[in-house]
Amino acid sequence: MRKAVLTQPFRQFTMRTIQDLIKPKVRKLAPYTLTPHRTRIKLNQNENPFDMPESVKTEVLHRLAEREWSRYPDFIPVQLQETLARFAGWRADGVLVGNGSNELIQNLLMVMVAEGTPVVLSEPTFTVYRLMVETLGGEVVNIPPRADLSYDLAAIGEAACRTNAAAVILCSPNNPTGVTVSEADVRRLLAEFDGLVVVDEAYYEFCGQNFVRLLAEFPRLVVLRTFSKAMAMAGLRVGYLLGAPELVIEVNKAKLPYNLNFFSMAAATVAVEQYETALKPLVELLIAERHRLETAFQELPGFRLVPSAANFMLVEALRHTPKEVFESLLAESILIRDVSRYPLLERYFRFNVGTPAENDAFLAGLRLLSER
Amino acid sequence: MRKAVLTQPFRQFTMRTIQDLIKPKVRKLAPYTLTPHRTRIKLNQNENPFDMPESVKTEVLHRLAEREWSRYPDFIPVQLQETLARFAGWRADGVLVGNGSNELIQNLLMVMVAEGTPVVLSEPTFTVYRLMVETLGGEVVNIPPRADLSYDLAAIGEAACRTNAAAVILCSPNNPTGVTVSEADVRRLLAEFDGLVVVDEAYYEFCGQNFVRLLAEFPRLVVLRTFSKAMAMAGLRVGYLLGAPELVIEVNKAKLPYNLNFFSMAAATVAVEQYETALKPLVELLIAERHRLETAFQELPGFRLVPSAANFMLVEALRHTPKEVFESLLAESILIRDVSRYPLLERYFRFNVGTPAENDAFLAGLRLLSER
Repeated sequence: MRKAVLTQPFRQFTMRTIQDLIKPKVRKLAPYTLTPHRTRIKLNQNENPFDMPESVKTEVLHRLAEREWSRYPDFIPVQLQETLARFAGWRADGVLVGNGSNELIQNLLMVMVAEGTPVVLSEPTFTVYRLMVETLGGEVVNIPPRADLSYDLAAIGEAACRTNAAAVILCSPNNPTGVTVSEADVRRLLAEFDGLVVVDEAYYEFCGQNFVRLLAEFPRLVVLRTFSKAMAMAGLRVGYLLGAPELVIEVNKAKLPYNLNFFSMAAATVAVEQYETALKPLVELLIAERHRLETAFQELPGFRLVPSAANFMLVEALRHTPKEVFESLLAESILIRDVSRYPLLERYFRFNVGTPAENDAFLAGLRLLSER
Repeated sequence: MRKAVLTQPFRQFTMRTIQDLIKPKVRKLAPYTLTPHRTRIKLNQNENPFDMPESVKTEVLHRLAEREWSRYPDFIPVQLQETLARFAGWRADGVLVGNGSNELIQNLLMVMVAEGTPVVLSEPTFTVYRLMVETLGGEVVNIPPRADLSYDLAAIGEAACRTNAAAVILCSPNNPTGVTVSEADVRRLLAEFDGLVVVDEAYYEFCGQNFVRLLAEFPRLVVLRTFSKAMAMAGLRVGYLLGAPELVIEVNKAKLPYNLNFFSMAAATVAVEQYETALKPLVELLIAERHRLETAFQELPGFRLVPSAANFMLVEALRHTPKEVFESLLAESILIRDVSRYPLLERYFRFNVGTPAENDAFLAGLRLLSER
């Protein structure tokens, strides 16, 4: 309302540029870019190809029309936490809801990782982990998988203890390899390593296994989940963390207030309510399609499929470069992921299981290429 | 898929607890708690009391029904950036969209603030700024306002130059004081201080003034905006940053990919499209109500109203404590904000302008108290 009266100049010359004001480490990061492709068939982001069932959409839109949009979401989304706790089989004060699981990964690492803190990963894995550990100044201790791409748990445990790591992060199933860890191995790791063990279960619905039952026994276990894959909600950005209440209190301190909008909260709630009737049948269909694709690949020369417990699969291209496969499918308006720049995966591409018709088109595209 | 075979134990004893794994600074933070109150009239969060107009809701729900929920949002929300650029009068490559302006504040500070980096604030102001600067290890240089609560721009500029601050953050109108800065003062600050000048315009729609026209001239100016106040979208979490493209590239590096869900993007787009017809009339009505409240307070003994350029006002309670005012209104099911714990505001409370009927009830509640 009032004007300050400035009489003396603060300083004679201005010298700093925008670049001078940015932290050197940030300045050095290459801006992340992505060339968008609009294709008829999209098998590159491990999304649910069936879209959200109409019965869920209708109920969500109904709830959105009922609620005042101008009011902030609840400060603590108690109802959604309780819904997720029941759904997952864990306690409500051990649930944290995020704007996608990315946000929870960020919050979890923010409260643990300082300059130089070691965190054990097994690459190739979900790339956001290294990005965040390094952004926070931590040190990635990378333990490569064995030749068959399975986790080398003995080496991971040894490295975690040797470096006194703050955490070991395992994705099960792992993206992009599709491998899982066994319960025995996670138990062993928790018993013999005294840091946090994070199991990212982004694709657990497709593998018939999860680690929630270990939470009560091991307060240093954290399970991460997302609504972006089986739950058909990649567009709505919802993830959740399951852990010991005392850990959740700490991670919550790094979370921005009102991080989740009420639209996405409503969608997550209804998706859980209707999971058994509306979404689980789609998951089962995708698993059946995965088996069909495995069989089909046995008769497809030039490609070696890596068995997967997720809704995506890694393929070793034996006669072409991954780039050639990518380009050839793109010409058919089919989008896959060229993962050749991931460690150990120079000769690989990744695709996710689509609808039956999409999978047929994908197989036809590869057959065309294999005959060339 | 495969099990690791573990033969040797990694280490004999486990010693660290969860608390040992959390950074000491985080551990020391008190968990943020908030007692939720459900009241008939809610004047405590500066929300738009009219809710989103039906015409906007209908169009948004229509767009949500059209789009596949299972697909990720666009990697770069180009269309929304262009819509906001046109709306604000700035270039699309100088726009960054966030999950509420809170996220953009966090990202902006993350790329600039390292251990010990000075940032100038003038408290009382929006509390998220200090919280974030300190979480990132920076140093808040606080320059209190003058006795009438107006910004002391001469002292702010002097302190910014003396400490070689990375940034000065000004909210205009400021929350909770309602004061603005003048264009002349911002120009002067930008000319004589060579760090970033951030103007948070969360409430600019209510003050008839904004700083967008200075962006072309001063690449070190950043303007922040939100959809949570005049735009009636607090429940949907959308904010945006306007700045030089070279700054936007850097801030974008700290942003999580896919940070904004497509529901909220659609709502922001339609709200902008219908701003003139659907939302601006509500803003004008709120400004008229603010004037009516100012007049009414002149005849209300025991309370001194601070003039405000926003949709909320600060009141000095002369005969009661702010807690007494809060409790007395709560008994009438009216919720206001007791701001007595803010610096300099020991005797103050804050309320936001409600609907005409809500404002009548609020005034009646205060009259009751003043007659007691």
